[in-house]
Amino acid sequence: MAVLERTPGVLRAMLAGLPSQWTDATEGPDTWSPYVIVGHMIHGERADWVVRARTVVEQGESRAFKPFDRFAQFRESEGKSLAQLLDEFEELRVQNLRTAKSWELSEAQLALVGEHPAFGAVTLRQLLATWTAHDLGHIAQIARVMAKQYAQAVGPWREYLPVMDR
Amino acid sequence: MAVLERTPGVLRAMLAGLPSQWTDATEGPDTWSPYVIVGHMIHGERADWVVRARTVVEQGESRAFKPFDRFAQFRESEGKSLAQLLDEFEELRVQNLRTAKSWELSEAQLALVGEHPAFGAVTLRQLLATWTAHDLGHIAQIARVMAKQYAQAVGPWREYLPVMDR
Repeated sequence: MAVLERTPGVLRAMLAGLPSQWTDATEGPDTWSPYVIVGHMIHGERADWVVRARTVVEQGESRAFKPFDRFAQFRESEGKSLAQLLDEFEELRVQNLRTAKSWELSEAQLALVGEHPAFGAVTLRQLLATWTAHDLGHIAQIARVMAKQYAQAVGPWREYLPVMDR
Repeated sequence: MAVLERTPGVLRAMLAGLPSQWTDATEGPDTWSPYVIVGHMIHGERADWVVRARTVVEQGESRAFKPFDRFAQFRESEGKSLAQLLDEFEELRVQNLRTAKSWELSEAQLALVGEHPAFGAVTLRQLLATWTAHDLGHIAQIARVMAKQYAQAVGPWREYLPVMDR
């Protein structure tokens, strides 16, 4: 929770007001810019983490998760500024954490199982840990994408900057 | 500059008030925690970037850079809380950016050369680009170190989280 609640502020601190040379930059064809990544994280708030967690918590007839659309952001972010996306992400995250906290999950509930489309049985505990690690992975990705824009500009220092070749 | 001036806020958004299980976590023996990384970045503000840039800008007798101590933080951070380090980094960064801006560097000045202890001739432009990329590399590292704390907890999702194996 301590990590999940910080993410909207982290994205804002990194990206709000930053020139688009940075926020639209990628690592090459078919890789994502910071702008695309924020859109992807918004889709996760709408369609993945808490939606799937609810399926597990409620233990209804079907505990199967809907497949997650990894390309939804190319459609859903259309026409939106990065500032709008940062606001949207924050609102959804605050709402989702409120929902998750309201469940007051017990150890027994954290061990309940849902059905992942690829992996099969996964626990609620694994789902919530993945929500957190997914945030951190994309924060690392945003910083890496930005760093790579200077891969040439740093000259010989590249040798000391492993981020350039990750 | 747009990136450099955001870094203190990014570190604060990621780390301020976060439990020490996260801020003292590492990737294993002889790897750095977020706490250690912030100390290293402070030493960079004190002894590296603007100090070296000044050597180049002033074009005095010697343009040789002093070697950078990559372990200074283990000595210099001693007894300090992470909150203190975050404040210290911010103060030093604000001051250093004020200095760098005051030079009102021209294209000609950016092409001036200093002497790196390992690489030999490097330009001021390369030094300033490296200052920026170095920030981003360490932000990515902090997020990665944190993500890895959940390498086991995410269960089968690990396969979808490349950050766990970088």
